[in-house]
Amino acid sequence: MDFAYDATTERYRERLSAFLDEHVYPAEPVLAEQTRAADDPWAPLPVVEELKAEARRRGLWNLFLPGERGAGLTNAQYAPLAEITGRSPHLAPIATNCAAPDTGNMELLSEFGTPAQQRQWLEPLLEGEIRSAFAMTEPDVASSDARNIGTRIERDGDEYVITGRKWFISGAMNPHCRVFIVMGKTDPDAEPHRQQSMVLVPRDTPGVEVRRAMTVFGYGDEEAGGHAEIVFDRVRVPVENLVGGEGEGFAIAQARLGPGRIHHCMRAIGMAERAIELMCRRAVSRVAFGKPLAEQGVVQDWIAESRVRVEQLRQLVLRTAWLMDTVGNKGAHTEIQAIKIATPRTVEWIIDKAIQLHGAGGVSQDFPLASLWAGVRTLRLADGPDEVHKRSLARRELKRYL
Amino acid sequence: MDFAYDATTERYRERLSAFLDEHVYPAEPVLAEQTRAADDPWAPLPVVEELKAEARRRGLWNLFLPGERGAGLTNAQYAPLAEITGRSPHLAPIATNCAAPDTGNMELLSEFGTPAQQRQWLEPLLEGEIRSAFAMTEPDVASSDARNIGTRIERDGDEYVITGRKWFISGAMNPHCRVFIVMGKTDPDAEPHRQQSMVLVPRDTPGVEVRRAMTVFGYGDEEAGGHAEIVFDRVRVPVENLVGGEGEGFAIAQARLGPGRIHHCMRAIGMAERAIELMCRRAVSRVAFGKPLAEQGVVQDWIAESRVRVEQLRQLVLRTAWLMDTVGNKGAHTEIQAIKIATPRTVEWIIDKAIQLHGAGGVSQDFPLASLWAGVRTLRLADGPDEVHKRSLARRELKRYL
Amino acid sequence: MDFAYDATTERYRERLSAFLDEHVYPAEPVLAEQTRAADDPWAPLPVVEELKAEARRRGLWNLFLPGERGAGLTNAQYAPLAEITGRSPHLAPIATNCAAPDTGNMELLSEFGTPAQQRQWLEPLLEGEIRSAFAMTEPDVASSDARNIGTRIERDGDEYVITGRKWFISGAMNPHCRVFIVMGKTDPDAEPHRQQSMVLVPRDTPGVEVRRAMTVFGYGDEEAGGHAEIVFDRVRVPVENLVGGEGEGFAIAQARLGPGRIHHCMRAIGMAERAIELMCRRAVSRVAFGKPLAEQGVVQDWIAESRVRVEQLRQLVLRTAWLMDTVGNKGAHTEIQAIKIATPRTVEWIIDKAIQLHGAGGVSQDFPLASLWAGVRTLRLADGPDEVHKRSLARRELKRYL
Amino acid sequence: MDFAYDATTERYRERLSAFLDEHVYPAEPVLAEQTRAADDPWAPLPVVEELKAEARRRGLWNLFLPGERGAGLTNAQYAPLAEITGRSPHLAPIATNCAAPDTGNMELLSEFGTPAQQRQWLEPLLEGEIRSAFAMTEPDVASSDARNIGTRIERDGDEYVITGRKWFISGAMNPHCRVFIVMGKTDPDAEPHRQQSMVLVPRDTPGVEVRRAMTVFGYGDEEAGGHAEIVFDRVRVPVENLVGGEGEGFAIAQARLGPGRIHHCMRAIGMAERAIELMCRRAVSRVAFGKPLAEQGVVQDWIAESRVRVEQLRQLVLRTAWLMDTVGNKGAHTEIQAIKIATPRTVEWIIDKAIQLHGAGGVSQDFPLASLWAGVRTLRLADGPDEVHKRSLARRELKRYL
Repeated sequence: MDFAYDATTERYRERLSAFLDEHVYPAEPVLAEQTRAADDPWAPLPVVEELKAEARRRGLWNLFLPGERGAGLTNAQYAPLAEITGRSPHLAPIATNCAAPDTGNMELLSEFGTPAQQRQWLEPLLEGEIRSAFAMTEPDVASSDARNIGTRIERDGDEYVITGRKWFISGAMNPHCRVFIVMGKTDPDAEPHRQQSMVLVPRDTPGVEVRRAMTVFGYGDEEAGGHAEIVFDRVRVPVENLVGGEGEGFAIAQARLGPGRIHHCMRAIGMAERAIELMCRRAVSRVAFGKPLAEQGVVQDWIAESRVRVEQLRQLVLRTAWLMDTVGNKGAHTEIQAIKIATPRTVEWIIDKAIQLHGAGGVSQDFPLASLWAGVRTLRLADGPDEVHKRSLARRELKRYL
Repeated sequence: MDFAYDATTERYRERLSAFLDEHVYPAEPVLAEQTRAADDPWAPLPVVEELKAEARRRGLWNLFLPGERGAGLTNAQYAPLAEITGRSPHLAPIATNCAAPDTGNMELLSEFGTPAQQRQWLEPLLEGEIRSAFAMTEPDVASSDARNIGTRIERDGDEYVITGRKWFISGAMNPHCRVFIVMGKTDPDAEPHRQQSMVLVPRDTPGVEVRRAMTVFGYGDEEAGGHAEIVFDRVRVPVENLVGGEGEGFAIAQARLGPGRIHHCMRAIGMAERAIELMCRRAVSRVAFGKPLAEQGVVQDWIAESRVRVEQLRQLVLRTAWLMDTVGNKGAHTEIQAIKIATPRTVEWIIDKAIQLHGAGGVSQDFPLASLWAGVRTLRLADGPDEVHKRSLARRELKRYL
Repeated sequence: MDFAYDATTERYRERLSAFLDEHVYPAEPVLAEQTRAADDPWAPLPVVEELKAEARRRGLWNLFLPGERGAGLTNAQYAPLAEITGRSPHLAPIATNCAAPDTGNMELLSEFGTPAQQRQWLEPLLEGEIRSAFAMTEPDVASSDARNIGTRIERDGDEYVITGRKWFISGAMNPHCRVFIVMGKTDPDAEPHRQQSMVLVPRDTPGVEVRRAMTVFGYGDEEAGGHAEIVFDRVRVPVENLVGGEGEGFAIAQARLGPGRIHHCMRAIGMAERAIELMCRRAVSRVAFGKPLAEQGVVQDWIAESRVRVEQLRQLVLRTAWLMDTVGNKGAHTEIQAIKIATPRTVEWIIDKAIQLHGAGGVSQDFPLASLWAGVRTLRLADGPDEVHKRSLARRELKRYL
Repeated sequence: MDFAYDATTERYRERLSAFLDEHVYPAEPVLAEQTRAADDPWAPLPVVEELKAEARRRGLWNLFLPGERGAGLTNAQYAPLAEITGRSPHLAPIATNCAAPDTGNMELLSEFGTPAQQRQWLEPLLEGEIRSAFAMTEPDVASSDARNIGTRIERDGDEYVITGRKWFISGAMNPHCRVFIVMGKTDPDAEPHRQQSMVLVPRDTPGVEVRRAMTVFGYGDEEAGGHAEIVFDRVRVPVENLVGGEGEGFAIAQARLGPGRIHHCMRAIGMAERAIELMCRRAVSRVAFGKPLAEQGVVQDWIAESRVRVEQLRQLVLRTAWLMDTVGNKGAHTEIQAIKIATPRTVEWIIDKAIQLHGAGGVSQDFPLASLWAGVRTLRLADGPDEVHKRSLARRELKRYL
């Protein structure tokens, strides 16, 4: 066993931390200011574009992507970097072109896209010129159960005709989000996991209506392109827009999720570390009833708890990344579910305590905490609610005794 | 012992429930629509004014206020009514002129105001013509410790000169909010609980700057007049604007809080009941993995837990109301703190589960749940964080053994 | 609403508290000593008999039993008294002839017994001359589901023949426990809730084998007669020993449980109060790191939490008692389940904190805490695990929306 | 990073698991039977001696001890083995001569003992011929604060004179426990961490009185030598019995604790795994309300939670072991405290759920669960209550921001 990060990871960590210290943290109030001042809430903001340029200059670009197209890191190498970007989750991931959902979409196109698809969509995504969305969730059904998906993708000659309603399509409010990867049913009569397919739908295809922005605990997540409700009304795309084969949608989605969850979880750990830092800074500087908050017993309890919980969590996530690198996503299935379950609630608990220590400020726009909280709370149900993952994990555990 | 509501209470409950069914619930989507469409987010909305007229017509007005000026109910009689209005907390309390912070301010003016103050401010408040705010919390200090208050109220001839910064002044963004009751120090050298005084500051007094709106988990709470940051820069008011005597600010604030907490807690219980109803409706109607959510064991667990928790909570709050009626606010001190501690977290837990059951919809604007959650989460720190109340409660308990 | 205890209750509370102060608490170390010194761990101890005599002398006898045979109190009147006896649960209930399972058995015989049964068993029980047991739980099946009961009660001429194995039959190790009320199936083909019957089986009937004592977290509960495993091997009793009618076993068991749960819960609240008292006494007297434990923030948090939780709980239990008095056990079904769920875990939490504050002493025989804990932990599964009650409660809640 | 166990570890794991399967699990009921039948509850039992012989034959002996005297494993190598022995904690550790408190005492004598001390005490301990105890905890003070220790060790010529009272001295009831390492104050006027010293006190020294056995939730822990209260009344030992130097007691105690905590934690993880296994076996075999417990949603939730929690925990403990190997005990201080805090409560939670699933059987002697529970609950306060460790951990965290 060796729990140390390797030299490559350490080098990147150092450079990435320096980038955050020198550019990202100082840009946070600028982002807030530009967001407030923007006429169009969804338009890309100058501060983001400047950070992207700077990150690229520093070679901190596409770190998430294995192979030659990206930085070529393993999951175990990238995970500690995702943690660092998670400390400023509205800026650092996008600045380094490592933001969801583009990361998952780039992985997907990299692995399953045709050369033409890669040329058209993957390359500008890798350059950070456009953004993309992943359109799976639907309002009318429990989409944690893939069999429920209602969107139809019907072949009609050389075209697919797509009809359905999606919501919470993250990033899609941003006009630079040029393409949607849409999940729908091509064959409702096939066996449950062979009914779905994925097609690429350019934003400006007739019949696509980006109807409204969903909010998350009052937040619009404007800088991330929001969360759109999109209606597909007999939208036609050429059959070449199919990703992988017909009926492979479910399998591709599964493949996409493994690394995505690692990224989410490591960023969430970074959020937790940021919250702990804010909590400690507040505790040593704020006085009540004659002594710093840091000397109140229950505050020390929160801080110790936060440290104990986040240390456990990090090791589990790192081990999962390592497992994915060594035995593959499938072999790491239990662990991937475990981190999906363990991370959001742990980080939510920590941020909640940091908020509490900040009093009214904690719930407001003056600290990043409430917004971090809303993001991490949502992870408890994004990509399937915890309960579905627990069910599945438990069944695998029980199977050993049947 | 007799746990039954009396006849007066039952009669009001029936009428109030009918009002909610017939007018308030149907107005909820109208409120959302008018809020979205409003040019000025803080301007009063027609739907609210219509509801107020209807409530008044039905004799459902100023229910919170004991004595002849109000409905003349005891705390124990009003509590179950506040629960009902809490089911639609953005509309029902204001519709019945029972919304914080006006309620506390009306009580305060009713008890401590001079006849002139009552004529000028209490009467239009009782009529629902204007609104008011209570300006105590400050950004720079832990205002749960009254000794920390930084705002100065200095006598200069026949005037008080007020200088300080307040934030999270609920309701103050609404231009109809015509008066602020401002807490500040008149005598920093007096003993800790005699330093503070309260003065009435009309909104349009020179030197008053309503600077910005604070958000709460991304929400602006527009329909409630938001939460303002207000700067008082050498604001001058006549000495007649003093409420009670100099040095009585702390005592008056304490007197104001007892009933206010009961109201908050009972409304929160109504929110919990609303959440349970939404949770159950979702559970019986939504299918995943081949059966309704209602048949998944963990969902039943949530529902049972919610019921068990809310039943305990309600009895404690009702008993506290009864104690206040029978032995006074001071005699009910422990219980008032207990409900302040117990209510927000219990209701938060219940709403959290309801959100989880609603998936992505639960965190969005399509259900009231996320917004209810943000409101109740904030109660854990409004009016002193739980931890301060626990400290105080524990010390009283320990004193019996010293 | 009126949350005050009535005059009768207050009078009894005063007398009962005096009895505990003057006789019961001082007898606790005597009990420990006599238990340690006893040759036969199950033999009745002199200290208990002396307390019984004293309680009787003081008119503190059969308080639990309504009607002329007992003290004639309502559930709402008795509940606060059960709380007081719960403060010394190994002594006070038995001293006042108010100990389970005799209480439930006396109620049962009082309501469903024939005159002959009452003469033979109820009268000596009321006199505290013998004890009794209730034999329902079986090792081989989930007895929370009455349909699972495996014990057979077969009619053979004028006799019933009983065959089966029971365990955790509380009190049955005590040789003075002269009679068992045995639940078994008389008609396995009837509809599920009409299959069971109850028969009275004298301890010395041939074929009855009290096989061994079960332990509860290492405790034998000797002073309470332990928890026996009993084998019934073709045990014959006259048909006159049937309680109620054939097929009524389930209904009678249900009737028996309501008041029993109230008693258990109120005693558990008394245990919680005892634990809070011990916690506070320890906190003010023990010094660590230069100041009393009472001044450590997390200790204050525990004490405040304990107070807040127990106050909520007590009100719910009292309301349930009142409901049983006013609308009957059936009308109070939800509430009875709610207190069954809420009480053990709440009290367990409180005692756990008291233990923690006592360090190693807390888990040992030198304080009553660990033993109280084991008792209350067991309530989470006695008489059906919490989960079964939650399931049932949730289904009732959901039914309103179907 | 590399999360795989090395080849040596894997080899030992395999052999150790085989030993448990073939000898230890089958010996569990034998242990229970021999304990029940024993005349002297503290006398060594044949089954234990047989297991020791078998373990030694298999080369599974003194695995915990680094260097030539033991198996020569690192902490990271031994940790996974301690987990396996923890699955049968009453038998496997003692069978392999890896049971506390002997392990800590052997390490201590190995590192700080004089050659004479090693010859007299370490060698027979390594052979498993005698046992030993560590006498630090005192009833009258909060011994988590070393400054509180009341026992005096006074030099008188060539002897030390020891006077004090200790309790919860694990193992000391066993007559084969031949020596006590006693912590006391040699210089109460020195600075706080230089006041204590350790001396070796043979059991049969005049003035040593092993007064009574303390219980832990009703358990006597007979097979482990119980937990004794010991009075030292002017006990005289030669000055050669000093371990290390005068005033070094605190430092030696600290050195002793690091590995001990790792061992405790890894064994506790083994206990958790055992509980999960029992929980799963029960869930698939027990039927209630028409289907196996395994198909009840809340049971799946418990199993998934257990898996998620234990996986996190194990990684943290392993990382801590690795840290101790690479940066030393001092460098791993935070992590050692973190596992001390995280482990007992996590494992306690898991065992609690396993108990609940076993119904009444779960709290009884028929399953190992209640006894495992009592052991792990006690870890929350053994060697300093969690709260003390949290306080210390939080202060270290806060120091970074001062």
